[in-house]
Amino acid sequence: MSDAIEFAQRLIAAPSVTPATGDVFAEMEAMLAPLGFEVHRFLKGEAPDGPVENLFAIRRGPSGSKHFAFAGHLDVVPPGEGWASAPFTPEKRGELLYGRGAVDMKGAIACMVEAVRHVPADTGTISFIITGDEEGPAVYGTRALIDFMAERGEEPDLCLVGEPTSVNRLGDMMKIGRRGSVNIWLEVVGNQGHVAYPHLAENPIPRLVAMLAELDSLTLDDGTDWFQPSNLEITDIEVGNVAHNVIPAKAKARISIRFNDVHSGQSLSDKVMAIAEKHGGHAKPIISGEPFLTPPGVFSQMVSDAVESETGVTPEQSTTGGTSDARFLRAVCPVIEFGLVNATMHKRDEAVAMPDLDTLSRIYTRIATAALTS
Amino acid sequence: MSDAIEFAQRLIAAPSVTPATGDVFAEMEAMLAPLGFEVHRFLKGEAPDGPVENLFAIRRGPSGSKHFAFAGHLDVVPPGEGWASAPFTPEKRGELLYGRGAVDMKGAIACMVEAVRHVPADTGTISFIITGDEEGPAVYGTRALIDFMAERGEEPDLCLVGEPTSVNRLGDMMKIGRRGSVNIWLEVVGNQGHVAYPHLAENPIPRLVAMLAELDSLTLDDGTDWFQPSNLEITDIEVGNVAHNVIPAKAKARISIRFNDVHSGQSLSDKVMAIAEKHGGHAKPIISGEPFLTPPGVFSQMVSDAVESETGVTPEQSTTGGTSDARFLRAVCPVIEFGLVNATMHKRDEAVAMPDLDTLSRIYTRIATAALTS
Repeated sequence: MSDAIEFAQRLIAAPSVTPATGDVFAEMEAMLAPLGFEVHRFLKGEAPDGPVENLFAIRRGPSGSKHFAFAGHLDVVPPGEGWASAPFTPEKRGELLYGRGAVDMKGAIACMVEAVRHVPADTGTISFIITGDEEGPAVYGTRALIDFMAERGEEPDLCLVGEPTSVNRLGDMMKIGRRGSVNIWLEVVGNQGHVAYPHLAENPIPRLVAMLAELDSLTLDDGTDWFQPSNLEITDIEVGNVAHNVIPAKAKARISIRFNDVHSGQSLSDKVMAIAEKHGGHAKPIISGEPFLTPPGVFSQMVSDAVESETGVTPEQSTTGGTSDARFLRAVCPVIEFGLVNATMHKRDEAVAMPDLDTLSRIYTRIATAALTS
Repeated sequence: MSDAIEFAQRLIAAPSVTPATGDVFAEMEAMLAPLGFEVHRFLKGEAPDGPVENLFAIRRGPSGSKHFAFAGHLDVVPPGEGWASAPFTPEKRGELLYGRGAVDMKGAIACMVEAVRHVPADTGTISFIITGDEEGPAVYGTRALIDFMAERGEEPDLCLVGEPTSVNRLGDMMKIGRRGSVNIWLEVVGNQGHVAYPHLAENPIPRLVAMLAELDSLTLDDGTDWFQPSNLEITDIEVGNVAHNVIPAKAKARISIRFNDVHSGQSLSDKVMAIAEKHGGHAKPIISGEPFLTPPGVFSQMVSDAVESETGVTPEQSTTGGTSDARFLRAVCPVIEFGLVNATMHKRDEAVAMPDLDTLSRIYTRIATAALTS
């Protein structure tokens, strides 16, 4: 048995609803310092989205050695109601360990700590890039850590993010990319009036409807070798007119686009803004993240081999799902995500199979070793 | 000088925000009874839209004589803020008489009372069809009066509604018809889900957008000799989804159609329901009123001649604008609307030019006399 289960319990026992600071980072520091890591912790941001705590820990290998990083987050989503046991009191029942963050992703971070115990210090440089702001707006978290590393010239050559990527059993899926995400607010302004006198008014709704019909009919792309087709969803329309006999002055809508690496957030924003303007409206985009892709190659093969050695399963190389902090780390070095089974993440009674913690620790040891020695 | 100004002051002084009961009807009875009218008053309906008071008054002419009716309402819209004088205290300033209802339509009702003083009782049967529920939902008002008349077998041969139809000066416009009105609530139900996994959800918005685009593109008709083209306005869209990354479960919209006598409320409802179903949604219509048309002929000529004799102006025979109680009375007999200048109706400082009250009284006398003797 490894110590991963104990590490996981210690991290779960420190409540850390996003944005996280304090105790959970103190626990993390207490685990890493004895293993020879130089630990840096700093706060960033202000209420309501901050302050956020960030931790960068590094154990330097011999001069000129490679640098491999584990990345992740210690903040968790709110526990919600209805748990069978207290969400921040780790509890073992059968072979499961319950607690908020068990799979997303304190459990995986515990495995990373356990993993580095089995990588000799002279193998190479290992670092931890750990934020308290991944489940929230992610403004003060990994981006600040990237700046911190850049200032110190301590940027990794390869990075593994411990998001819970496994679906049905540990090892069945890894993420070699994620789609980008942009939300765009649309608005059409007209002139209010009475429905009986439409010539004295200008109804903005038909223009919004035509705009949305055109946006909905777009084929953004047909997908790529590694990505499914980009997808546009109309997520809201809002007029807010309660008077039956009034033509409203304004009509608004919101769309959300999840896009592959054929596009950038800006190229899609430009496209949507042009369509909005064509229909006499305007568009205001907020880009949540650009897509990333670490094309199948040496790094993905290392991860795949490690998983296969420990589980007998060959992980699917997927680019599906939501966004993660890999959207930021992609700018630093090749990134792959691999972690626990995600079935209970963000749900009540979040739980991890304890044998998976041991297995994942060994997988992470294999990945780190391969990354530093290949 | 006629007594119309005094009658108008007495009616304005009795507050009667819709739905109206009581004092204002007592005043009306006190004016009509001395003129030989048999006055019936009755309450109808319950809160919040009732109770409503209705008044039917009749002065019977010789056996077999014709029956002409004046119709109108004693309820008024709320006064709102910012009046220069108290809205329910009639005040003369210059040649204007101020007060809520001065033009819509206590002033016109005062003119009707004054008018019948100058029509000898043996000319024919004259009645007053007066409700306290025209400015509200109109559920307990004129419809109840129509039932009342039908039960008694005392239905008029012709009816004049005293709505303020004049636009720039007294006499410039009469209404020989009004469009019908139907509001239709549209809904499309889908399946909620996450924008990153659209294949697991079913977004109802694209279907609603396609439905609205089709509805907006409809040409209902090209107008008729007497009506402008029917018009459909999309008046509201409501999704109410605040989460950027969620595909909503439901999308709703509302349309309002003002339609001419090419259609009925039901025929349009059927058409919209078929389009809604084609797009996987459904539609719930509420018909506010059917169109009415009293085609130009003997009755409109009587009104026109009376107006021209007293004002020198030939009234335009219009079918524009909103709905009125003529939508109900059309089922009883030919109906035309003619009344005061509508510039200040429903506004603060509603006011009528006192000379117009005298002129309108004489016009109404001419119309009643012509209707009973032609």
